[in-house]
Amino acid sequence: MEHANKDRSLVSKVMDGLVSGIVEEKYGAILPPQDVLSKEFDVSRTVMREALSMLLARDMLDVRPKIGTRIRPMSDWRMIDEDVVNWRFRAKPDPMFLRDVIEFRILIEPRAAAQAAARGSAADVAAIREAFEAFRVIRPGEPAYQEADELFHTRIVIASGNQFFKQMAAIIRGALSTVTPLVHDRTGVWEGAIASHQRVVEAIERRDPKEAEIASLAMIDYSAEEIGGRFSAEPPARV
Amino acid sequence: MEHANKDRSLVSKVMDGLVSGIVEEKYGAILPPQDVLSKEFDVSRTVMREALSMLLARDMLDVRPKIGTRIRPMSDWRMIDEDVVNWRFRAKPDPMFLRDVIEFRILIEPRAAAQAAARGSAADVAAIREAFEAFRVIRPGEPAYQEADELFHTRIVIASGNQFFKQMAAIIRGALSTVTPLVHDRTGVWEGAIASHQRVVEAIERRDPKEAEIASLAMIDYSAEEIGGRFSAEPPARV
Repeated sequence: MEHANKDRSLVSKVMDGLVSGIVEEKYGAILPPQDVLSKEFDVSRTVMREALSMLLARDMLDVRPKIGTRIRPMSDWRMIDEDVVNWRFRAKPDPMFLRDVIEFRILIEPRAAAQAAARGSAADVAAIREAFEAFRVIRPGEPAYQEADELFHTRIVIASGNQFFKQMAAIIRGALSTVTPLVHDRTGVWEGAIASHQRVVEAIERRDPKEAEIASLAMIDYSAEEIGGRFSAEPPARV
Repeated sequence: MEHANKDRSLVSKVMDGLVSGIVEEKYGAILPPQDVLSKEFDVSRTVMREALSMLLARDMLDVRPKIGTRIRPMSDWRMIDEDVVNWRFRAKPDPMFLRDVIEFRILIEPRAAAQAAARGSAADVAAIREAFEAFRVIRPGEPAYQEADELFHTRIVIASGNQFFKQMAAIIRGALSTVTPLVHDRTGVWEGAIASHQRVVEAIERRDPKEAEIASLAMIDYSAEEIGGRFSAEPPARV
């Protein structure tokens, strides 16, 4: 215990020191080699490796063969603890959880779709179309279905161009992993789901933020209603 | 390296096993003692302690003297990596980051205020009023100012009653730590800030979701305009 605690707090201190150096732009784009860093911080190579691996796991660093350890753009740094998100969504959903999930999707996705329409790059918009085309040819129950749906929704939040919206993609994927199996397997529902997704893509391609927002909200409502009238979105209060 | 990796993956496996047991409600409300768990998972007490401490740090467990290790409600499990949030907000903000921060606040806070008005408990609403009364008697520059402001905004997202909105409080606090020092210190601005906060409290107390949303948006716009016209909220596309 003593030993484990000491190591842990030492690793934390080293992480903090590394991050301070990074945010103060002390290192430039590439971190010095591990042995140089161990000497700079006066810690063992094991401790330095542990600290670096924790920053790697948070998408703060990138190991490039022959180049070294690159510092990733701060907008990529992962604020969401994906372990906890995955665990949380693994539990059997209760009604309150489903309500909160749907409310959260209603919060993020329509605004993200509007911003994707307003300012997504041509490549962002093409990536959304591509994900949709891949999604529409897979049937519910096929192994790739869930993943294709998640990619579609992820690409919309990425196209929003807002780094915080992007971070929320992990929660959206968790939400889909809970909601989609409750919905798309039923007969007739799948066709409706495809149509509601298509409406979003087309609005984004037409660069129509208002229609993209409405279509995204309708897409979420469609799932919510299929889950059961109870969770159907009370429309959020609007200014 | 070999050794460190082996330990890490063992700790991860144990964490995963513990969480599976928790979500399958195998343990009830209180976890078995550490030595029982180490035997169950056939790992050393050090590995078990490390796994438990990582779940503790994520607000998934609670150590209660004489009672044992309690499993916390899943809605408390921390999906936000507060280390990364703190690091991210420690860096000097660039214009794009400030834009994204303000957009994210505009996304969350007005909706949270509306829901606080619609369904916050009497205790939630009283806690918001209490935080506001504490905030209004402290001047910018006094040490407690920042903390009082953060508490006020945190209590609104808590009162929303949505567990995902609550999780976002850590990001809102980071945003305030960046924005408030740029704003409230200027002469005359503080009075305006107090007035804009007061309008939100009063709308929530009157149980008026629409007015709470408008007031919250105005409160954020007020900061955004003070930071500089550039970041002033383009009003989000509305349905």
